[in-house]
Amino acid sequence: MKKILIISTGGTFNKVYNPKNGALEIDKKSNPLQDIASKWLCGFKIFNIIGKDSLEMTNHDRLELLSTIHQSDCQNIVIIHGTDTMDITAEYLADAELEKTIVLTGAMVPYSINPTEATANLASAYGYLNALEKEGVFIAMNGVMGVYNKVRKNRKEGRFTL
Amino acid sequence: MKKILIISTGGTFNKVYNPKNGALEIDKKSNPLQDIASKWLCGFKIFNIIGKDSLEMTNHDRLELLSTIHQSDCQNIVIIHGTDTMDITAEYLADAELEKTIVLTGAMVPYSINPTEATANLASAYGYLNALEKEGVFIAMNGVMGVYNKVRKNRKEGRFTL
Amino acid sequence: MKKILIISTGGTFNKVYNPKNGALEIDKKSNPLQDIASKWLCGFKIFNIIGKDSLEMTNHDRLELLSTIHQSDCQNIVIIHGTDTMDITAEYLADAELEKTIVLTGAMVPYSINPTEATANLASAYGYLNALEKEGVFIAMNGVMGVYNKVRKNRKEGRFTL
Amino acid sequence: MKKILIISTGGTFNKVYNPKNGALEIDKKSNPLQDIASKWLCGFKIFNIIGKDSLEMTNHDRLELLSTIHQSDCQNIVIIHGTDTMDITAEYLADAELEKTIVLTGAMVPYSINPTEATANLASAYGYLNALEKEGVFIAMNGVMGVYNKVRKNRKEGRFTL
Repeated sequence: MKKILIISTGGTFNKVYNPKNGALEIDKKSNPLQDIASKWLCGFKIFNIIGKDSLEMTNHDRLELLSTIHQSDCQNIVIIHGTDTMDITAEYLADAELEKTIVLTGAMVPYSINPTEATANLASAYGYLNALEKEGVFIAMNGVMGVYNKVRKNRKEGRFTL
Repeated sequence: MKKILIISTGGTFNKVYNPKNGALEIDKKSNPLQDIASKWLCGFKIFNIIGKDSLEMTNHDRLELLSTIHQSDCQNIVIIHGTDTMDITAEYLADAELEKTIVLTGAMVPYSINPTEATANLASAYGYLNALEKEGVFIAMNGVMGVYNKVRKNRKEGRFTL
Repeated sequence: MKKILIISTGGTFNKVYNPKNGALEIDKKSNPLQDIASKWLCGFKIFNIIGKDSLEMTNHDRLELLSTIHQSDCQNIVIIHGTDTMDITAEYLADAELEKTIVLTGAMVPYSINPTEATANLASAYGYLNALEKEGVFIAMNGVMGVYNKVRKNRKEGRFTL
Repeated sequence: MKKILIISTGGTFNKVYNPKNGALEIDKKSNPLQDIASKWLCGFKIFNIIGKDSLEMTNHDRLELLSTIHQSDCQNIVIIHGTDTMDITAEYLADAELEKTIVLTGAMVPYSINPTEATANLASAYGYLNALEKEGVFIAMNGVMGVYNKVRKNRKEGRFTL
């Protein structure tokens, strides 16, 4: 088994309903990942950073993500990221030519609203990363997985496709 | 992307509550897999066979499973199986020396009672299989995955461990 | 048993997540009520009208509600309403001095995000109405129930109190 | 508002899945009621006694229930009870001619498997009891509610009917 770090940057995956204002807000403590770990009956090493919707993510945030990856001694990393700019962050990380294996994932529906898609995306990324034998940046979403520039968000269908 | 077949043999993964007799029974139409496919926003090729608790599985059932695998033109197969005899079926399939890549998975808690663990097991098996570059029989459960004889059910802890 | 009509006007109770735009929107077909009826193992007579967040509800909408109540031959009515202006609509209906028994209810959290509070509010209103032996306008929310001008939304606590 | 005591005696309402033996067992701490109270945003006064499937309930258990009711200073009581002998316990309590108002309820499906029916049964009993202006023993299940000997379990349909 590989030693895997999960870095959660926010995104729809982590949104929770706030009854006081009726809005969906990023859960900065990332309880969704703790909840999945507890129910999946396993432990994760989790870093929570940034805590933003991916439409609000800046290059300054991407630098913080890159720096977090650099500082980690983990060779294998899953990143939870909003779906709208997942491709931009993936390209940003690919350009950095890290000697690591990175799989980005996220969710179209918040884990707190319906756990199935978010859980499946995370677990497929985790499984994929465990067997990957090369470095690079990959995306795993909605049952499709591959090199980052091959898996794209299909806005019309509301899911990722090859 | 690999072409993956999911063979569902029953097990806790597929149990649903029957309010008329108060029992948990195997859902032979395997709606859990259809439900995961629908929420994960992807399609699966699914075969439902046997439909048993793994404690009731006989070598005749294992022969039916082996025969189903033989007849399929899929090189890559995920098997949903009860946890109690997953190791016996895995060894049975390994002894058959198939030129295929097979990942067995299942659940400690029925999908219909709490979807997180069952979904995570299936999706991690699916992701793992997508990146595996060798033939053989593997198990993916509770976030651990590897060659079938390395991943074991820990009855005391109620989960699979290496 | 009384013959009870449920009029659903929208509100948080009926909101569902739209993955394509990330917004919570009123489900105008009110599937939540159908889902509760199906799981509660009973049938409801349901009218869906207006379909708005209660902050957007106008006196024209309230007139439509009043007219729907007038036209119904049901003496006993539960109204699903947004929480922010439930008191205004209740007073509007009380001023109309209808010879009916009306219980307003709703939810702080959408049924589709977590079913417990919405279900409990609706079912408590339904049970309360079944035993009420007087005409008038009442509110049942968060386990408190009584004449409409005694039960109030406590915005600080995020729930209704006496 | 009336002061209401909830006495939980066990039954399907309180069953939870035990992954170690695959059985549905009564949760003797009655976390379902705590969970409903927390999500319904209100507080309950709860007594947990007996903790049995109603098929196993003896007259000794019914005496314990009667004694608990006698000792309470609450005039209004909801009892969570298994559905199979709810009618027997109701008649037992009616024969005791208590000067109290008692509503029995329960569930066909455990709260932990699907919360909607159990929540709706409890909340309708709670609402009904709040407006009842007479003493006696009543049953509220599946949207029907009335004097205990009028509401019956329909085993064929798997729900309670008048």
